[in-house]
Amino acid sequence: MHSGLSWIMVASEIGFSLVELAKQTRQASRQLAVLSNHDRNFALEAIADALTSATPEILAANETDCQFAKEEGISQALYARLHLGETKLQAAIAGVRDVAKLPDPIGVKQIHRELDQGLILQRVTCPLGVLGIIFEARPEALIQITSLAIKSGNGVILKGGKEALRSCQALVKVIHQALASTKVDPATVQLLTTREEINQLLALDEYVDLIIPRGSNSFVRYVQENTRIPVLGHADGICHLYIDGDADLEKAINITVDAKTQYPAACNAIETLLIHQAIASEFLPQIALALTAQGVELRGDEQTCQIIPATPATETDWSTEYSDLILSIKIVDSLATAIAHINTYGSKHTDAIVTENSQTAETFQNQVDAAGVYHNCSTRFADGFRYGFGAEVGISTQQMPPRGPVGLEGLVTYKYKVTGNGHIAATYSGNNAKPFTHKDL
Amino acid sequence: MHSGLSWIMVASEIGFSLVELAKQTRQASRQLAVLSNHDRNFALEAIADALTSATPEILAANETDCQFAKEEGISQALYARLHLGETKLQAAIAGVRDVAKLPDPIGVKQIHRELDQGLILQRVTCPLGVLGIIFEARPEALIQITSLAIKSGNGVILKGGKEALRSCQALVKVIHQALASTKVDPATVQLLTTREEINQLLALDEYVDLIIPRGSNSFVRYVQENTRIPVLGHADGICHLYIDGDADLEKAINITVDAKTQYPAACNAIETLLIHQAIASEFLPQIALALTAQGVELRGDEQTCQIIPATPATETDWSTEYSDLILSIKIVDSLATAIAHINTYGSKHTDAIVTENSQTAETFQNQVDAAGVYHNCSTRFADGFRYGFGAEVGISTQQMPPRGPVGLEGLVTYKYKVTGNGHIAATYSGNNAKPFTHKDL
Repeated sequence: MHSGLSWIMVASEIGFSLVELAKQTRQASRQLAVLSNHDRNFALEAIADALTSATPEILAANETDCQFAKEEGISQALYARLHLGETKLQAAIAGVRDVAKLPDPIGVKQIHRELDQGLILQRVTCPLGVLGIIFEARPEALIQITSLAIKSGNGVILKGGKEALRSCQALVKVIHQALASTKVDPATVQLLTTREEINQLLALDEYVDLIIPRGSNSFVRYVQENTRIPVLGHADGICHLYIDGDADLEKAINITVDAKTQYPAACNAIETLLIHQAIASEFLPQIALALTAQGVELRGDEQTCQIIPATPATETDWSTEYSDLILSIKIVDSLATAIAHINTYGSKHTDAIVTENSQTAETFQNQVDAAGVYHNCSTRFADGFRYGFGAEVGISTQQMPPRGPVGLEGLVTYKYKVTGNGHIAATYSGNNAKPFTHKDL
Repeated sequence: MHSGLSWIMVASEIGFSLVELAKQTRQASRQLAVLSNHDRNFALEAIADALTSATPEILAANETDCQFAKEEGISQALYARLHLGETKLQAAIAGVRDVAKLPDPIGVKQIHRELDQGLILQRVTCPLGVLGIIFEARPEALIQITSLAIKSGNGVILKGGKEALRSCQALVKVIHQALASTKVDPATVQLLTTREEINQLLALDEYVDLIIPRGSNSFVRYVQENTRIPVLGHADGICHLYIDGDADLEKAINITVDAKTQYPAACNAIETLLIHQAIASEFLPQIALALTAQGVELRGDEQTCQIIPATPATETDWSTEYSDLILSIKIVDSLATAIAHINTYGSKHTDAIVTENSQTAETFQNQVDAAGVYHNCSTRFADGFRYGFGAEVGISTQQMPPRGPVGLEGLVTYKYKVTGNGHIAATYSGNNAKPFTHKDL
């Protein structure tokens, strides 16, 4: 019988257990933070081995998830993400070993300076502490996130999409078993299993140092608005491509088609095409042909609709991330108008210009306020792997660093270590103040 | 007559004008962002010259502020901060010229990498945009903040303590006049004059990129809790000094006295002294003598009170920033207990250990979670000038960078610029994917 009272008791138990769990992760993360790179890599190899051995159980759990999801009428796209299979699992395991091979992000000396004789300042990278990562129903994401967390010396509290619950539980069970034989405390990695726990997690600013939400724009915005913990991520990816009057039209067509159609659901795909009026009547018919051949629906401003057949665009179109084969098109009278449009409607993700005029390109790259400002290439390059960061934790559209595609760098912070031999501040103050030497070592 | 209606109209006018003002600053900051270092430095020199010429008016405005503040019974400490005088003004003007001499924080190439032949990635520093800085009634702070903002290519909306209103207005008038003859738009620097505008400023997340609040802990906490704009600052400075069993007691005494008494109101002064039990009975009487000679009130845990006369400390003492000549003292049984105490009650600002055992020091510096972890020196070194950053915008106790004392570095962000020659992502995807070269240039 579920009386009101027993419900309250259960609810408070959940809350209590989550705080306890976060405390354990915090404690475990403090131990992890001081392990050597060798010890952390050893744990990653142990996880990779254990996942390989447990492949049948993991795939069986995933099959059950897939079965239930099908019965509930999951979309084909979501099913493709949820379904693991041996190939995806093996790729994810190889990814764990790749992360182990990345340079150690911890203990990097960023500043090494003598302040005075015998008084030495060092700025050294160190883990953030505990990460809270909320991700979509994609089991291999759990494997990648866990390996990045351990490599960067951080504890991690995971919450996967509900459709992948059994897959996530199977994976975390294997990871805990693997860690038991290493110096990394299994409590370093925790799994939340209910939706209710997300709000509780967002309130744990005492124990969690960074939240990384993945998934729908509205969900990411919800997280950003409902926690005091720093959030790494982006709610919108409204990317623009501007075809300048001095553009090479062949490059412009190739880049436009790639940036819109190569993976339209990606955040770095373009939503709006801006075209300089000087080339609009020549370029528009060609690009319309190329895009409609790929099944792209075109929405144009008034001038555009006078040149090609297109649905009239409304004000809403300029601030919409379609994440689909839809493109809004606007004709502009100048570079300045293009930049102003992007700075008004863009989401500071990635915006590109096609032009043979390097001065125009430079102005665009300097004046557009976005994490990525591209010249003569597709916006689809905005990605941690493509930038050569080895692994990506996400793309940030915030103004402060870390901005753009973030690798392990976004999971570490730094400390200032100062070592003296009895040095006191009074020596360097007042009338007979000793000067600092400030000599970089 | 102030009818309800006219009040509403006035209030909405204020709101409207502040949004307009912020838009103007945003616009001006976009122009400033692309000026050369030479142009920005020229503007700083023009400001320095104009402030020198206008010294009589500025000092007269400040005298009026001081007069009113005295009549309202301002405390001596606040009066000392409010009063400008020729010496302080000249030092502030020299500071403007010093900031001009600092290396340009804008346009620094942090990454320069070939992704593939002809496809080049650069990560380049750029201004944040618009800063909102709320500061205490200290007129020379306005001069320093303005010069740091212009040097870093940012617009700035200033709000000074109300006692300094006339001084701030006089200074901004001179700064606007000086900028009129330079390439920097006077709208780059704006002054708010009413307390009501602070809340409006905190709501302008569309136009303001970073808030730096200075002043009381409760005010900083209020700002942190009432804005979606990133906040750089610290609400508390609860710093610890741990005297290890292997400490050199002479160094320990000098460092303790300096860290507590050299400037007790500073955020980097210590509030709690932790002492290893092995040396407590020898060290405590000596340090109590030295501290009481400086007028320090001692509050001790039970064990401490058995060795020296002290007020019994309560639980509240361990989490209180006295900002005064008061020190809480606790005897601990081990390094681990000291670290646990600091990680529980500290504010992640700066904590120090005194020990001759370098292994113990290393453990302390690795395991204490704070922006500054010091060995055998005073916590009072936690300061941007002392670290050699030239100028300081504040000290951050957040976990993510920028952390600790922040120089111009905290006022800039970066962009990823990618330049290609028609490169598209499809080339690097699928079965015949071309590999990236990822070669640092």
